[in-house]
Amino acid sequence: MTPDTTDLVKQLLKGNRRAAARLMTLAESLSPEAHSAIKQLYPHTGKAHIIGITGPPGSGKSTLVDKLIEQFRNQKLKVGVVAVDPSSPFTGGALLGDRIRMNRFASDHDVFIRSMGSRGSLGGLAWATHDIVHILDALGKDIILVETVGAGQAEVDIIQLAETVVLLSVPGLGDDIQTIKAGIMEIGNVFTINKSDLDGADRRYVEIQSALNLGQETKGWQPPIIKVVATTGEGVEELTKAIQDHHSYLVESGEIAQNREQRCSAQLETIVEHSFIRKLFTDPEEQTLFQELVKEVNSRKTDPYTAAEKLILHLIKTPKK
Amino acid sequence: MTPDTTDLVKQLLKGNRRAAARLMTLAESLSPEAHSAIKQLYPHTGKAHIIGITGPPGSGKSTLVDKLIEQFRNQKLKVGVVAVDPSSPFTGGALLGDRIRMNRFASDHDVFIRSMGSRGSLGGLAWATHDIVHILDALGKDIILVETVGAGQAEVDIIQLAETVVLLSVPGLGDDIQTIKAGIMEIGNVFTINKSDLDGADRRYVEIQSALNLGQETKGWQPPIIKVVATTGEGVEELTKAIQDHHSYLVESGEIAQNREQRCSAQLETIVEHSFIRKLFTDPEEQTLFQELVKEVNSRKTDPYTAAEKLILHLIKTPKK
Repeated sequence: MTPDTTDLVKQLLKGNRRAAARLMTLAESLSPEAHSAIKQLYPHTGKAHIIGITGPPGSGKSTLVDKLIEQFRNQKLKVGVVAVDPSSPFTGGALLGDRIRMNRFASDHDVFIRSMGSRGSLGGLAWATHDIVHILDALGKDIILVETVGAGQAEVDIIQLAETVVLLSVPGLGDDIQTIKAGIMEIGNVFTINKSDLDGADRRYVEIQSALNLGQETKGWQPPIIKVVATTGEGVEELTKAIQDHHSYLVESGEIAQNREQRCSAQLETIVEHSFIRKLFTDPEEQTLFQELVKEVNSRKTDPYTAAEKLILHLIKTPKK
Repeated sequence: MTPDTTDLVKQLLKGNRRAAARLMTLAESLSPEAHSAIKQLYPHTGKAHIIGITGPPGSGKSTLVDKLIEQFRNQKLKVGVVAVDPSSPFTGGALLGDRIRMNRFASDHDVFIRSMGSRGSLGGLAWATHDIVHILDALGKDIILVETVGAGQAEVDIIQLAETVVLLSVPGLGDDIQTIKAGIMEIGNVFTINKSDLDGADRRYVEIQSALNLGQETKGWQPPIIKVVATTGEGVEELTKAIQDHHSYLVESGEIAQNREQRCSAQLETIVEHSFIRKLFTDPEEQTLFQELVKEVNSRKTDPYTAAEKLILHLIKTPKK
C-alpha cells in the first residue's frame, strides 16, 4: 500500500513520531514517495542546529551522544539523532547499542533516534541521511546529532551535513592520530578526547594542539580541544558549551549562511548524480543494455569508457519517466 | 602541453615505467586523455591477479604489503601496488611510509608502487583506482595489490576492485572487531591477524572464527585465518599461499568469471554516474544554473528534489560536448 505522503507530512508537522518514522523508512528506501514528502516538508526546515559527531570505531561515539542528549534535554531542547553506520553495508539495521539507547529515551517524546546501515549503495546513504535530517528538522527538533564513523569518505560527508563538526579521538594505539594528521583536522570545529582518564590522553591533547597550530588559522573560530570521559559524563557539559559556542560564532559572524549554502549544494549534487544511476537500475530497457555492455567490457570487446558513452547517450535519449 | 596518449600507451605496453607514471597522473586527474588511454590499453588488461588488502588505520597494512611484495618477487612475479588513503581528502599525496617503500623497491623494475589520496570528491577516487589498476595490468604486472583503509565505504569499493580480499585485523582495543562483526566478514576471502605476537591474538582468532561459523557458508571457499607478524615477516609465506590458493579456487570453480563481471559492472556504473556530475561542473552554463538553484534551495524558495529535476532536465537538453 502506498502511504499518503501528504497526510504523513501533515502528521509530522504536528509532531507525530510515528509519521516521522514512516517517512524515514521511505527516505531510506529512496522511494519517490519520500521525495514527494521532502518537497512538502522542506519549507518547514532550516531551524535546527545540525551537529556531526565523528570518530573511529571504538572511540565511544554512541556513549558520548547519549550524554550530549542529556545535556541538551536539560536545556529543554528537542533532540534528533541519526546514527550512520556505513561499516555495515550488507546487514544493515540497528546495532545492539542503538536499541539500548532507544529504550533509554523511549519515554522522552522530545528525543528521536534513528539508526541507518549503509544497505544502499553508491551514495544512497548520503542521500537518505540528508532527507532524514530534513524530516527531524520539520518534526521540530532544535538539535540534530549526526553520528558517523570517522574514516574514509565518511568525514567528507559529515561536513556536507553538519554545521558543527565534533571530531572524536581516543588515547591509544595511534590508530586515529594518523587520520587526524592526514588532513581531517581541517573539518573539525570542536576536538574531543574521549576516555581521557586513560594513559596517553595528555599526549593526544598535545598532538592535536600542535596539528591545529600547524594549520595556522589565526582568524575566526579557534577549535577548542575538550577532554571527556563519556562513560561518566565528565567534561560533557564543557563540550556542550563548546558546541553551542560554535553555533553562536557561526550566527554572529554570518558564516552560517555560507555553511548552509554548501550543504544545499552538496545535497543537490547527490540527488542529480544518483538520479541517473537509479534510472539505469529501474528501467528494464536500460538494465538490459547495461548488462550487455558489462559482458562486452568483461570480454574486452569494448572498454569501460566507450560502454559508458553508449549508456549515457541512451539514458539521455530515453524519455524520463 | 597535452601528452600524446597513443605514444604513452605504446610505451606502457613495452613496460615503460615512466609512461605508466604519467598515465596514472592523468588518470588521477580524471582527464579525458586518461579515458582515451584506457580505451587503447584496455584490450591488454585482464591478466593480473588483483588482491585487496584492507584493515583499520594502524593495522600495519603498509608493512604487510611490503612483505607480500617480497614473497611474490621470490616467485619471480611482477608486482604492482596501489595504496589508497581516503583519510586524506584535503592534503592528498604520498605519505612518508610510501616514500620509504618506494625507495626500498626503487631498484627493482618489476615492482611499481603508486599512492593515492582522495583529493577528488564524489567517487573520483574509486574511478581513478579502477584506471590505475588497468594501467598496472597493461604494464604486465602479474599481481596487483590494492591497499585501502577498511572502514566506511572503503570495503564496498574493495570488492568492486579485487578478486581476492584480505581482511586485516589486529589484537587490541576491539576497534575493528565491531566492524568485522557488523558484516564485513562477508567480503573477506582471507582473514589475517597482524601483530599476532601481542596479547589478545588468540582471542581475536576465536572471535573471527566464530563470526565466520555464524555465516554458515559451508560450500565453496572456506576463508582461512592466518596469524602474521608483518614486521618480522612471520606467517607471511603462509598468507601468500592462502591468497594464491584463493585465486586457484576462483579459476578452478569458474567463479572468476562472475567475479570479473561484477567488477566491470561496478566500474561502468561509476563512470556513468560521475560523467553527469563532471558535466555539471565543467560547463559554465550548467554551473550558473546550479548556483542559482542552490540559492533557491537555501532560501526555501524551492526544495532539493524540484531543483534536481530542473537541473537534470537542463543537463539532458544541453548537447553533450
